[in-house]
Amino acid sequence: MLDAKEVAKHNSRKSCWVILYGTVYDVTDFIDSHPGGANVILQLAGKDATVEYDPIHPPGLLEETLSKSQILGPVDSSTILKPPPQRPASTSPNTTSEPENPISHTPLPPLSNQLNIADFALTAEKTLSPKAWAYYFSASDDLITKEHNSSAIASILLRPRIFKDVEYVDTSIKLLGTQPSSLPLFVAPAAMARLAHPDGEAGIARACGKNGILQMVSNNASMSLEQIASARASPSQNQWFQLYVQTVREKSNKILQRVNETGYTAIVLTLDAPTPGKREADERVKNFGNTTSAISGEGVANPSVHTGEGLGRALFAGTSPNLTWADLEWLRSQTSLPIILKGIQTHEDALLAANNPLVSGILLSNHGGRAMDTASPPIYTLMEIRKYCPEVFDKVEIYIDGGVKRGTTIVKALCLGAKAVGIGRAALFGLAGYGEEGVGRVIQILREEIETCMRLLGVNSVKDLGLKHVNTSAIDHLLYKTPSYKTNVTRFVEGVKARL
Amino acid sequence: MLDAKEVAKHNSRKSCWVILYGTVYDVTDFIDSHPGGANVILQLAGKDATVEYDPIHPPGLLEETLSKSQILGPVDSSTILKPPPQRPASTSPNTTSEPENPISHTPLPPLSNQLNIADFALTAEKTLSPKAWAYYFSASDDLITKEHNSSAIASILLRPRIFKDVEYVDTSIKLLGTQPSSLPLFVAPAAMARLAHPDGEAGIARACGKNGILQMVSNNASMSLEQIASARASPSQNQWFQLYVQTVREKSNKILQRVNETGYTAIVLTLDAPTPGKREADERVKNFGNTTSAISGEGVANPSVHTGEGLGRALFAGTSPNLTWADLEWLRSQTSLPIILKGIQTHEDALLAANNPLVSGILLSNHGGRAMDTASPPIYTLMEIRKYCPEVFDKVEIYIDGGVKRGTTIVKALCLGAKAVGIGRAALFGLAGYGEEGVGRVIQILREEIETCMRLLGVNSVKDLGLKHVNTSAIDHLLYKTPSYKTNVTRFVEGVKARL
Amino acid sequence: MLDAKEVAKHNSRKSCWVILYGTVYDVTDFIDSHPGGANVILQLAGKDATVEYDPIHPPGLLEETLSKSQILGPVDSSTILKPPPQRPASTSPNTTSEPENPISHTPLPPLSNQLNIADFALTAEKTLSPKAWAYYFSASDDLITKEHNSSAIASILLRPRIFKDVEYVDTSIKLLGTQPSSLPLFVAPAAMARLAHPDGEAGIARACGKNGILQMVSNNASMSLEQIASARASPSQNQWFQLYVQTVREKSNKILQRVNETGYTAIVLTLDAPTPGKREADERVKNFGNTTSAISGEGVANPSVHTGEGLGRALFAGTSPNLTWADLEWLRSQTSLPIILKGIQTHEDALLAANNPLVSGILLSNHGGRAMDTASPPIYTLMEIRKYCPEVFDKVEIYIDGGVKRGTTIVKALCLGAKAVGIGRAALFGLAGYGEEGVGRVIQILREEIETCMRLLGVNSVKDLGLKHVNTSAIDHLLYKTPSYKTNVTRFVEGVKARL
Amino acid sequence: MLDAKEVAKHNSRKSCWVILYGTVYDVTDFIDSHPGGANVILQLAGKDATVEYDPIHPPGLLEETLSKSQILGPVDSSTILKPPPQRPASTSPNTTSEPENPISHTPLPPLSNQLNIADFALTAEKTLSPKAWAYYFSASDDLITKEHNSSAIASILLRPRIFKDVEYVDTSIKLLGTQPSSLPLFVAPAAMARLAHPDGEAGIARACGKNGILQMVSNNASMSLEQIASARASPSQNQWFQLYVQTVREKSNKILQRVNETGYTAIVLTLDAPTPGKREADERVKNFGNTTSAISGEGVANPSVHTGEGLGRALFAGTSPNLTWADLEWLRSQTSLPIILKGIQTHEDALLAANNPLVSGILLSNHGGRAMDTASPPIYTLMEIRKYCPEVFDKVEIYIDGGVKRGTTIVKALCLGAKAVGIGRAALFGLAGYGEEGVGRVIQILREEIETCMRLLGVNSVKDLGLKHVNTSAIDHLLYKTPSYKTNVTRFVEGVKARL
Repeated sequence: MLDAKEVAKHNSRKSCWVILYGTVYDVTDFIDSHPGGANVILQLAGKDATVEYDPIHPPGLLEETLSKSQILGPVDSSTILKPPPQRPASTSPNTTSEPENPISHTPLPPLSNQLNIADFALTAEKTLSPKAWAYYFSASDDLITKEHNSSAIASILLRPRIFKDVEYVDTSIKLLGTQPSSLPLFVAPAAMARLAHPDGEAGIARACGKNGILQMVSNNASMSLEQIASARASPSQNQWFQLYVQTVREKSNKILQRVNETGYTAIVLTLDAPTPGKREADERVKNFGNTTSAISGEGVANPSVHTGEGLGRALFAGTSPNLTWADLEWLRSQTSLPIILKGIQTHEDALLAANNPLVSGILLSNHGGRAMDTASPPIYTLMEIRKYCPEVFDKVEIYIDGGVKRGTTIVKALCLGAKAVGIGRAALFGLAGYGEEGVGRVIQILREEIETCMRLLGVNSVKDLGLKHVNTSAIDHLLYKTPSYKTNVTRFVEGVKARL
Repeated sequence: MLDAKEVAKHNSRKSCWVILYGTVYDVTDFIDSHPGGANVILQLAGKDATVEYDPIHPPGLLEETLSKSQILGPVDSSTILKPPPQRPASTSPNTTSEPENPISHTPLPPLSNQLNIADFALTAEKTLSPKAWAYYFSASDDLITKEHNSSAIASILLRPRIFKDVEYVDTSIKLLGTQPSSLPLFVAPAAMARLAHPDGEAGIARACGKNGILQMVSNNASMSLEQIASARASPSQNQWFQLYVQTVREKSNKILQRVNETGYTAIVLTLDAPTPGKREADERVKNFGNTTSAISGEGVANPSVHTGEGLGRALFAGTSPNLTWADLEWLRSQTSLPIILKGIQTHEDALLAANNPLVSGILLSNHGGRAMDTASPPIYTLMEIRKYCPEVFDKVEIYIDGGVKRGTTIVKALCLGAKAVGIGRAALFGLAGYGEEGVGRVIQILREEIETCMRLLGVNSVKDLGLKHVNTSAIDHLLYKTPSYKTNVTRFVEGVKARL
Repeated sequence: MLDAKEVAKHNSRKSCWVILYGTVYDVTDFIDSHPGGANVILQLAGKDATVEYDPIHPPGLLEETLSKSQILGPVDSSTILKPPPQRPASTSPNTTSEPENPISHTPLPPLSNQLNIADFALTAEKTLSPKAWAYYFSASDDLITKEHNSSAIASILLRPRIFKDVEYVDTSIKLLGTQPSSLPLFVAPAAMARLAHPDGEAGIARACGKNGILQMVSNNASMSLEQIASARASPSQNQWFQLYVQTVREKSNKILQRVNETGYTAIVLTLDAPTPGKREADERVKNFGNTTSAISGEGVANPSVHTGEGLGRALFAGTSPNLTWADLEWLRSQTSLPIILKGIQTHEDALLAANNPLVSGILLSNHGGRAMDTASPPIYTLMEIRKYCPEVFDKVEIYIDGGVKRGTTIVKALCLGAKAVGIGRAALFGLAGYGEEGVGRVIQILREEIETCMRLLGVNSVKDLGLKHVNTSAIDHLLYKTPSYKTNVTRFVEGVKARL
Repeated sequence: MLDAKEVAKHNSRKSCWVILYGTVYDVTDFIDSHPGGANVILQLAGKDATVEYDPIHPPGLLEETLSKSQILGPVDSSTILKPPPQRPASTSPNTTSEPENPISHTPLPPLSNQLNIADFALTAEKTLSPKAWAYYFSASDDLITKEHNSSAIASILLRPRIFKDVEYVDTSIKLLGTQPSSLPLFVAPAAMARLAHPDGEAGIARACGKNGILQMVSNNASMSLEQIASARASPSQNQWFQLYVQTVREKSNKILQRVNETGYTAIVLTLDAPTPGKREADERVKNFGNTTSAISGEGVANPSVHTGEGLGRALFAGTSPNLTWADLEWLRSQTSLPIILKGIQTHEDALLAANNPLVSGILLSNHGGRAMDTASPPIYTLMEIRKYCPEVFDKVEIYIDGGVKRGTTIVKALCLGAKAVGIGRAALFGLAGYGEEGVGRVIQILREEIETCMRLLGVNSVKDLGLKHVNTSAIDHLLYKTPSYKTNVTRFVEGVKARL
């Protein structure tokens, strides 16, 4: 048993110990390879860091990362002023009517008063820690693409038909031909769910299970992929695993092996973030506490070192920036699961993917506006595919995410050819404060909105939704025009002129 | 004579009595079939509920709904602390110059100071109860369609001509060939007028009678259809009855029989709301008082039960969600009155209606933005009809409602082919506080605005209004383009290219 | 000499006397024919009304209107508590650096600090009486056209050229072939200038004379047309007279005779206001003081009586609503001056005017947004003419007004074919507080902005401005499309399709 | 040694002495030819004017301007109450973590907390003097073009591609074929840098040198061109000199001789400002302190004298307004350096420039919105060139500036054909408070944003950026349409119609 006062002496770069879950670790040699940066560790050097460490690191990470000699043994809890917190248990499902946010300890509105996704966002902003809110809310640069994701699809009009018997509507679909879902809705991969609630990604899994919809599990989840898998309602509940390929490819091989063994039913390969976007709200939270950082003269001298901080950049550490189409062969060699490409943003890439026999589906996404600012809303990409290469719809399933706050948004994407639509922030905002229950309520709200929308359209099942139900005139002219398209029109005009 | 203290003991789901207009009713068996939900009744169990009950239920309803054994007899008024209120009498027409709102008892601006519809809305917001305001003001989801209804038509430009003798203008029209109206304006069906003023729908009827315009009477009026009919200025005053067909069809048969017998001159069949839209402002009023409601875990378990509340959903209870074109035959079998279809939102349905011999007119409407959010403004539908199937104008009369706040709006719709234009909220806002007088002032304002607009256009009569008086270029490109339209253009370009 | 206490007894509809400029008038018989309504007089009955009467009535009006027997003689000034104000003298031109507003007596910013038209508007809002500000600022309904007038032309882009010698620029033009102007700018007819400053229309005349530009004098000026004429800097200063034809045509004949005799050099016939627009800000000022007005039940009973008040409606009284093209013959019979038609808002009317040999010019105007709300900005009309009937430019001179706040606005209109551009409110805002000096500063500011704009365009004289200097793409698609234009395009597409 | 009390007596237009850097000057004869106006000098007459004079005048100017007899000799510093300030030394590079603004002496945020250009603007607004902020921030008239510069390019969408190896990206370019730059970014010529920080233009030079990018040096720099040249990191650092040709051509000849001798590597001839724009914010700062100025009656009398003041107009004094293409021959006769034309705003001028053998490059610029308001954003001009005369890209290099706040903006311009993109205000805002370090941070931020953008696009080097990476549909229709283009389309439609 180590004395906390002894630990406290190792509080510098030369010798740096920390207490985590009652055990003392010597992280001196690890400081400079910490994805989150050295400063974060040094601020906690010699102290109990459990509260800060816990919600953003999956279990097992310490054991993976450190050698046995760096695990110094248990601390004598009587020697520390504040006793080390226990890893928090998941809240029980039978929440009371005045639920209390386990993170901020402020009272939450009754869940039945949360009428829409915007209500959940409002509550999340009030109850999350500033750091967590900044991480979830932030998007790249000036948030133009983030806002555009919502506004573009809102400008599409719906065309309700009359005299249709809509007593019953069937919202169910089958993903990849065999995986049933009660809704054309899934939870898109989003990192660090335990920042919102101790239920974390397992809570999302339970809510998806109860509601019969797909969860895509983030490579950067704050729980292990096995923990999240074990939260399935039944073995038949579908979870797909999102993969960031690591520069050290062997790490990804190991992850894929675990994924293969744990019952995940597809791989979602993320391609829209070969480098992290600049999410200033996230970076700013770090900066504000960071008064000791010197003016980065070194940054000027060595301009290739990007200077931003923030959780987004930290999570990105180790991700491979040099994937090419050839790497699909490697991925197939590591797993026989269906492969989905996430982050398609042009019809050209959609067509390349559709023509690649290793690809089963594509997820049109701009990373929720968190990668390239002023990238197209994914609904534009969907319409671009229809305009230039509609054969893609016959070859792969097309999913879409970004900016989804309403059932009408989901139905519009289906009318234009999407197979299913993902929510990212909406699920996390449901989780914030309420845990699994909140995610369930979010799904319930969207289910009711989808059903109402389908009924008002006069449609009984998802497969009956089509182009005739949407008026896209407000954005038709905003789609990309290929140089050849422009040339053809010009040549056409020129040609007819020449003949007159 | 029952003692109120005895009544007060029956205040639970097991035994539930209420006092209404001095009589005690046992509603224990009715609680779960109450369209407005059980909670509303249980909150008033054992009490005098007249004030809450009165403005949203037509007279006669209790007798229709309850059996004789459930009518327990008169209460001894001396035993209740607050004496039961009398059914309020209609305010006398000779209002003083400083009228007092009979609902909120706040002073109202002199009626002559109300210069436009926006003034009335402002006053209504201040004087109505929060519940009534929420019910009238609310629209679906994010109110996009509600706002769009107004903004779309505001972006159409008017084209005044010069050197026209406009000393006299004739604003009169004939509806359905024989029913005269002094204006191309009608009051569209809107429910629950007594929430605004005790004059209720009868007050609207009197104002319409004095001004010589048509009233469409809501199926969900807060007065009986006979009461409203008896407010006619003369037997020749036209009232059309709006019908929500009930799931229990026999109920609708009975209503139609009463309609046939009471001198209504057309049936308006509502088709734009086979399920209620999600009017969150309305639902929220309920929710805010509803702190005891548990987190709706059941809702999650049984997702087909929609969880929203609100007056809009309550009124919808019992409405048939499964009408088809075949039901027009049933309707014709129940009445020989002309049939108008309300809620046409596409040119396809307009054409189907026009080609149906049972249909005399269509009312282009998105339910004032209260059904599908992001549905088209009705002016788009009107223009769509002209673009794709102008023969509709020759076969049925076309009416339009939604977002009307100005005479110019009405004139523009006429220029584009509408026969008459309806106001919904505007009439209710006129009623709020002022009663019949307010509705009269609203009609007077619109009459003056219509006349001024026609004079400035250089037009003497409604029939002279035409396409040449409006510039629709700001919205022409926003209309729905049929797939065949797009195909034709593409094929055209392709074809000419092929020949060059 | 009459005693004021005696006058004070005649304060009712039965016997109504007022004191004006020290003389007592019996206006009992005149009350009901007062264009501004009876109420205004009755509120001043028995009192000295000079302050209220003076700024909105031209001199000589009393003598014209009343018979000799109604002029009762001078009042004994010692008998009235407040001595009657003298008709105020024009302020002397050598204003001090801290000028004082002669109306509100508040200090004004130094004139050299007023850098643009918006500065003057801001000062005018602060220094004018609420009634005067409302009259000048107001426009019809929702002010959509008023705002559009400015925004439409602001969206046209200018195209500066380089390497042009712009040391000298010549901004002068000749109107109607012979009337020189130092700028392509004129003061459009605007009523009631003495509401802004005692200098009134004569002050505008002096400023125009010193700056060598045209003044159009309003039919509703607050000074006599002879007074305004006598303020000319020289006999060669051009003033055009704006005419509202009166229902009693003989009145207009008399006015035209005076115009002919006083050296005006053209007649501007106003055609965009056969009925007054609904300027609610103007009407509201009246209403607010008007707490005794009863609810206008009569208005409901007699809907053809429009209920609005306000200075705008009062000034309109007596104006003929039934002019036709045939009346041009009458006008020619009364004057040999060139005739300009004001208020052309369509290319159809522009073409009719151009083909009429009695017409020398047309003024594209929507009355500053004060007549029809949602009418086109005049720049659209100008572009419409170029699109559909450019021959108009060869047959008549085209002037334009509405929303002019910047020199760039003026230059853009010239590029598109206007001969000269008018300012209305801008001149009145200059007059407000500062009098003639302020109008001069307004003209000076616009002169400098025009010169700067021309230099930056690389243009030396007005005649060199052309289509190549403006990019109108932002509004090209918003112009009116004639039905034949649409038909042609459709027929064209149909036709080519048929041949493929 | 002169006594300050003696100097103080010479405080009038008759005899006007000032103390500058400890020396007394007699400027009596110079007052009326002072470009900044007489008033500014008279306010400082008889006083030590060093603080006011220093930041806006380059050294050596006094010696150039005044004769020896006007230099009266040193002042006895003991005789002045406040000792004369020394010319401030450049701040040392090793700034502390809480830097202090040398101008406003308020604490600055740590430089590493400045995450984007907007952060620097915010800090600059707080720390600069009102006069300096107004001069930098201001733009012409209503700032429409200034805002449009940013918004137009923000509405262009980027099209990220997937599966590209973007581990390495190369942002370097070569200007004019031989001058390397580490980024496609340069600092555009901007005047009066010492208003922001004593480091002035030399500080910008050092930051550009360390970062390997081009600086264009303003003709109106607040330091001598030799001082700025001597701040080069090495002889190979590129600086281009921006020239305003003077009316007294001999002055420009002398400047060009100095430029030729000091190692500048190109001449940037400014053509977008033959007269100064109306920058009201700048003019207003002067006006507010200027309560003694009389109402400018003279201005009215002599309208060709523009009345505005402000630093912008003062700096313009002496600039030639009459350059033509022929003057390029003169310029070539004075220098053999490559000639760049700055201020091209139409495709017509771009084509003329491209076909002129004396021109090596063109800088598309509207002077940062400071010349003609409502001129096109330069990105429109770039697209116009591609539409109408793409051969320009083959003949000259095209640079662009205006509204650049993000790396994405820069990359978009490159995709559309620009060679490099300039920042003006961004560099000055970096300089404000922080000096050279701040400029370095600005460049570093943009470098990182450019690199991130290129990686997310899937592009490895600048030359790979192309039209396929941008979707310009949001602005395609806003480009100038030549009359011939319109005619062709019309003729085309007419022609085909004729054949049907």
